[in-house]
Amino acid sequence: MPEGDNDVSASPVVTPWNVEGAVDYHKLVAEFGSTPIEPALVQRIERITGERAHTFLRRQIFFSHRDLSQLLDWYEAGQPFYLYTGRGPSSDALHLGHLVPFMFTRYLQRVFRAPLVIQITDDEKFLFSKQDAAVRPLEAYRQLGRDNAKDILACGFDLERTFLFADTDYLAHLYPNVLRIQRAVTFSQARGIFGFQDADNIGKIAFPAVQAAPAFSSSFPHLFGDNAQVPCLIPCAIDQDPYFRMTRDVAPRLGYRKPALIHSKFFPALHGHQGKMSASIPGSAIYVTDSAAAIRKKVNKYAYSGGRDTVEEHRRLGGDCDRDIAFQYLTFFLDDDERLADIAEAYRSGRMLSGELKAELIRALQPMVAQHQEARAAITEETVARFMQVRPMATWGA
Amino acid sequence: MPEGDNDVSASPVVTPWNVEGAVDYHKLVAEFGSTPIEPALVQRIERITGERAHTFLRRQIFFSHRDLSQLLDWYEAGQPFYLYTGRGPSSDALHLGHLVPFMFTRYLQRVFRAPLVIQITDDEKFLFSKQDAAVRPLEAYRQLGRDNAKDILACGFDLERTFLFADTDYLAHLYPNVLRIQRAVTFSQARGIFGFQDADNIGKIAFPAVQAAPAFSSSFPHLFGDNAQVPCLIPCAIDQDPYFRMTRDVAPRLGYRKPALIHSKFFPALHGHQGKMSASIPGSAIYVTDSAAAIRKKVNKYAYSGGRDTVEEHRRLGGDCDRDIAFQYLTFFLDDDERLADIAEAYRSGRMLSGELKAELIRALQPMVAQHQEARAAITEETVARFMQVRPMATWGA
Repeated sequence: MPEGDNDVSASPVVTPWNVEGAVDYHKLVAEFGSTPIEPALVQRIERITGERAHTFLRRQIFFSHRDLSQLLDWYEAGQPFYLYTGRGPSSDALHLGHLVPFMFTRYLQRVFRAPLVIQITDDEKFLFSKQDAAVRPLEAYRQLGRDNAKDILACGFDLERTFLFADTDYLAHLYPNVLRIQRAVTFSQARGIFGFQDADNIGKIAFPAVQAAPAFSSSFPHLFGDNAQVPCLIPCAIDQDPYFRMTRDVAPRLGYRKPALIHSKFFPALHGHQGKMSASIPGSAIYVTDSAAAIRKKVNKYAYSGGRDTVEEHRRLGGDCDRDIAFQYLTFFLDDDERLADIAEAYRSGRMLSGELKAELIRALQPMVAQHQEARAAITEETVARFMQVRPMATWGA
Repeated sequence: MPEGDNDVSASPVVTPWNVEGAVDYHKLVAEFGSTPIEPALVQRIERITGERAHTFLRRQIFFSHRDLSQLLDWYEAGQPFYLYTGRGPSSDALHLGHLVPFMFTRYLQRVFRAPLVIQITDDEKFLFSKQDAAVRPLEAYRQLGRDNAKDILACGFDLERTFLFADTDYLAHLYPNVLRIQRAVTFSQARGIFGFQDADNIGKIAFPAVQAAPAFSSSFPHLFGDNAQVPCLIPCAIDQDPYFRMTRDVAPRLGYRKPALIHSKFFPALHGHQGKMSASIPGSAIYVTDSAAAIRKKVNKYAYSGGRDTVEEHRRLGGDCDRDIAFQYLTFFLDDDERLADIAEAYRSGRMLSGELKAELIRALQPMVAQHQEARAAITEETVARFMQVRPMATWGA
């Protein structure tokens, strides 16, 4: 890995469990040693897939990668790959930020016709919880996982090409690779990557191997056979990169291919542009369960504004799109580039007021969230069970 | 735990992976905080079971316990218990020392009509191996486990009451309790108990929870139901006690009963009375696969003698039974107390020579090992599969 910036004290904290401070993504790419996604790579994806790139690619929301170009070389040479993403179930309702990797993964699955595995790390959330196990036992995390699975599937994954699993159900199958990975990582190394302390429980220390294992196709013999080495692409937020740096580090020692990665920026909190949206700070998040009225109220009340203090001043000086959360959210969810450019111009010039900008966001979010709710309502326990069934995939290899 | 002897430098090393130096069992009981098995307890077992105690109890080979008296109280009040023992598969052939806990467990199963679970820790042996994983991969340990299972079953366990499992097969079922235990043990605590170093792999650090989990009956819902709290008795060599001290420590925090323990002394190496027999030192062990001729040759050549340098001196001064390995082995395997007392008297007085004592041992071992080999030859892959099947036990609760 390249040397990072030495000014450690001023650096924001970015670990899989904590994101604090203002994140400078250019610095993060340099520190983590990943590669920025340049326009030429986006164009290449458009050429290969034969369609316009996803909003998240065009807007550099997925902004960094590891070995994506090599994966595309293989793909163009006729070698298929599979997608791996996941979720740690931590609260009963997902917020918009939680949908970002799944929306993007759905796009990747569609355009590359790629099989997909989705890991629900109910074990991780139990091990890392600060709540008393008597108050929130393992079973509670299993239930959260099943609830969250419905929201994930509401994103529209293809049953023919998607295998969803909870660690506490599927671990028997992962266990051989988990052991191989654990054996290849010392406590020193894990502490260096994840910052573990002596007071951390032993399950936390060993857990990274459980998140690493699905990046190797032999963890899914029912999908890929026992010995196939199918390349893997992992779409995830940049804070998950430490897990996969570790995974990529051990891969050659296990005789496995390194997984490729594509990293997103964080979805910002409603009340400010620093860090990522968190379900645990009130007013910081819009949930996928919010009503149209709640969305309107939250955006109007909490969305941090890049506008000026008075209408007069705003008309004269214009708004700051880079700090305006309503505008930032539109860059995620307003697909129409021209319309977004118009809004940006109008806001920066002072023609559009903060309330008008928020109204644009509300108009974009309300139908999107309503559509999610409708899709989720159609996901039954039987749907979840079908996606979670250990089975061959019908269209894999076809 | 009571304070141990402060003279650490002079203490023998006793961990689950290493036993070095001359072990003073009285000191060990004091250090570990367990309870010596007094004659009254042996008599109580005889009274409850209605038969003479096993040689290993009469001769104090099983010499120490934790909560065994309480377990017997429960048993006498009509509460059944289950037995849990296990083996880490480390070499293709077992030696006589490996049989000791299984011979004793078979006795306990018979006299208490107790269900028994036997854990094959193939995962542990892979994680703790110093051999290159490319040379000895996980699959090799799985195979060793299956081979060792045949030797274990040759000890005569009752199919109706015995469930045998390899961790790499059964982990899915253990995993909920493994997670609960891992969450209750910090790295500091694990390091304190097991002496882990920073350079140890993260799998080793987390493994103790896998050995602890079978001590809780909810790890076997197919045997005991989901919520039953069936008390557990663990027969094991004293070096395994650290695992179960940890288990007993976390049990109340998980709302579980502490398992009871019954500890054996180590089976001494042929070439000396220190430490335990090890398959990795040539000439130190008699294997269950040894022929009658090999047994005779090994005993005559390697068994450390407590006899004198010359026949004349031996006749005059007598032999030292406490240091004589042939005599020590007879205390394990010669059931006839009167005959053993006669031999001891004859050897100590100088009437019996070292060669004659060795001949006694050879006469005891040859049929025992031959019988084991015959029993093992009758164990097929199908036998193993039947014992390993996840199934209810026919006679449990009857």
